[in-house]
Amino acid sequence: MAREVAFTIFDVVGVEDLSTLPRFESHNRETYEAVLETARKIADDYFAPHNRKGDLNEPRLVNGVVELIPEVSEAMDAYREAGFFAAHHDEEDGGLALPWAVAQGASAFFQSANIATAGYPFLTVGAANLIKAHASPEQQAHWLPSMLEGRFFGTMCLSEPHAGSGLADIRTTAIPIPDQPGRYKLRGQKMWISAGDHELSDNIVHLVLARIEGAPAGTKGISIFIVPKRRTDAAGQVGPSNDVRLVSLNHKMGYRGTTNTILAFGEDDSCEGELIGEAGQGLAYMFHMMNEARIGVGLSSACLGLAGYAESLRYAGERPQGRHADERDPTSKPVMIIEHADVRRMLMVQKALCEPALSLCFYAARL
Amino acid sequence: MAREVAFTIFDVVGVEDLSTLPRFESHNRETYEAVLETARKIADDYFAPHNRKGDLNEPRLVNGVVELIPEVSEAMDAYREAGFFAAHHDEEDGGLALPWAVAQGASAFFQSANIATAGYPFLTVGAANLIKAHASPEQQAHWLPSMLEGRFFGTMCLSEPHAGSGLADIRTTAIPIPDQPGRYKLRGQKMWISAGDHELSDNIVHLVLARIEGAPAGTKGISIFIVPKRRTDAAGQVGPSNDVRLVSLNHKMGYRGTTNTILAFGEDDSCEGELIGEAGQGLAYMFHMMNEARIGVGLSSACLGLAGYAESLRYAGERPQGRHADERDPTSKPVMIIEHADVRRMLMVQKALCEPALSLCFYAARL
Repeated sequence: MAREVAFTIFDVVGVEDLSTLPRFESHNRETYEAVLETARKIADDYFAPHNRKGDLNEPRLVNGVVELIPEVSEAMDAYREAGFFAAHHDEEDGGLALPWAVAQGASAFFQSANIATAGYPFLTVGAANLIKAHASPEQQAHWLPSMLEGRFFGTMCLSEPHAGSGLADIRTTAIPIPDQPGRYKLRGQKMWISAGDHELSDNIVHLVLARIEGAPAGTKGISIFIVPKRRTDAAGQVGPSNDVRLVSLNHKMGYRGTTNTILAFGEDDSCEGELIGEAGQGLAYMFHMMNEARIGVGLSSACLGLAGYAESLRYAGERPQGRHADERDPTSKPVMIIEHADVRRMLMVQKALCEPALSLCFYAARL
Repeated sequence: MAREVAFTIFDVVGVEDLSTLPRFESHNRETYEAVLETARKIADDYFAPHNRKGDLNEPRLVNGVVELIPEVSEAMDAYREAGFFAAHHDEEDGGLALPWAVAQGASAFFQSANIATAGYPFLTVGAANLIKAHASPEQQAHWLPSMLEGRFFGTMCLSEPHAGSGLADIRTTAIPIPDQPGRYKLRGQKMWISAGDHELSDNIVHLVLARIEGAPAGTKGISIFIVPKRRTDAAGQVGPSNDVRLVSLNHKMGYRGTTNTILAFGEDDSCEGELIGEAGQGLAYMFHMMNEARIGVGLSSACLGLAGYAESLRYAGERPQGRHADERDPTSKPVMIIEHADVRRMLMVQKALCEPALSLCFYAARL
């Protein structure tokens, strides 16, 4: 896996050429390799070991609180302390100013090791990128530092139970709060919200699609709001609940360790949010995160494929069965199955599908 | 599903033409339709309802006995009473003398409804067909009636833990019992034995690949034996244990309701079996059942695909989301997703993959 990532990042995509650009001038192949090696080590030590345990122990809702296996929290600590939440952000924002392609290379290790646990930072990084791209300087100053430190996590709340991905039909409403420009009371229900609730962070920053009272029907009436799980004061300190209630957890077939939730906003009429950018532009802003997520899910698929390849390769080297086609002596020792031409062919197919997919993701990330 | 089976059986494969052959002269389209309708009804009433429950409640080993959910046994009773164990066998053997293609058409309903529960008769029918084709008249007289009545079930025991499907390396041995020609003491371990243990039948007839003491190495030294779970007397009555011990159950990803077992033969040196046919011909006889099973698994795949198509079709007709591309009014009522061209395309792909696969299986079964 480390070999495939290094080969695609350096030899295929040539990411070290980026160091000629001013933003990356403090970096070179050695610093990139050090970052990737750190990611590999944290992935091996903190993400991979509980991959199966996380799948066997889905998050549970106990007295209104989501219970995860403790290893997820430990993995988040290791990820946080190594600075990966802000890896591609500027140094003045507390980041490592890494090229996005290298940050994605690091992600590849986490996603291969444990796609479910990697889901939490995946969503947080995406939500932070949307805020960085579209929120006001004041909003960025208020929310981003906590997210880039990994103290606050993030989500994207699009779908609603009655409409699925038919966003033109969302009903969640936002009513302006008098005398507080840009602030709204939110009310509505959202479904399929990944990482929508947990106790892994001090707060959860939900990005919520909603319709401002009186907005036109259809997608043109959609705006996007920052709606934290817990309110914050002017200094960013976490305060009381913001009336975002976890209705239930959805069960999943795939990476079950990432909570998938139904959330109710404003059941007590006290859920407040901040409009991002212009009213009616919610869909356009949302696609900033969603397009990133689509490419990210593509990378995840390539990583899962590579993880499967690594397991297949290991097993093929350990499992004895049968003999070479030209071995006529039935009393001879069986060979490892990697010696069989068709097993090699299947291994090559796995590699030939996954490694170019990885290259394509890194190539796109370098653009 | 009933429509797809009838269309492929009658309109594509033209199975009623077979009634011109002497063996099938008592049959016509009406009798075939009655059989298929009976299969559909039993599948709907006794197989489908516990499909999910069976998946959620894997067979468990409790005090040496395999516990299945009770619905499996009820389904077996309904299947047995309708005569499906012997559907394609001659009338003088207690069968319905149905063409194999029609028997496979009936199987399609059971496999679509519940692939796991259908696994038990699937293996029993295959084992009985091997005995019918290769065992002596005395063996047939002794074992077949009980199997065709569905009182005894069957299995095929090929793989061993150390060798997987490398049959040249099997170690299970058969030692001739003095003064009892054709009878052997069996000793060895077999793995991945589907339906290898359960309490669904009075007895389980294992067909076991083994090496007669002194046989040549490799596949030429393999013979096949009838090894019942419980011994029978001359009249076929079930007696004491035949020293076939269930070592453990394997857990599975796919149809979990069919037990998958590790079996130990002859740990107390008292497991007896009967040689089928000639010594050293085990592999050839085994392939009678295995080739049938391969085609049967192909039919199962087509049936699972059709079951998925039926579910997709139902859901697409019930789930509202979005509007037609030419509908400009966002306040208009959402349409069912089957109205969307791309959903229709996907449904057509499902149908276009599964229905011809079904036709191919029935065509092959008619040959």
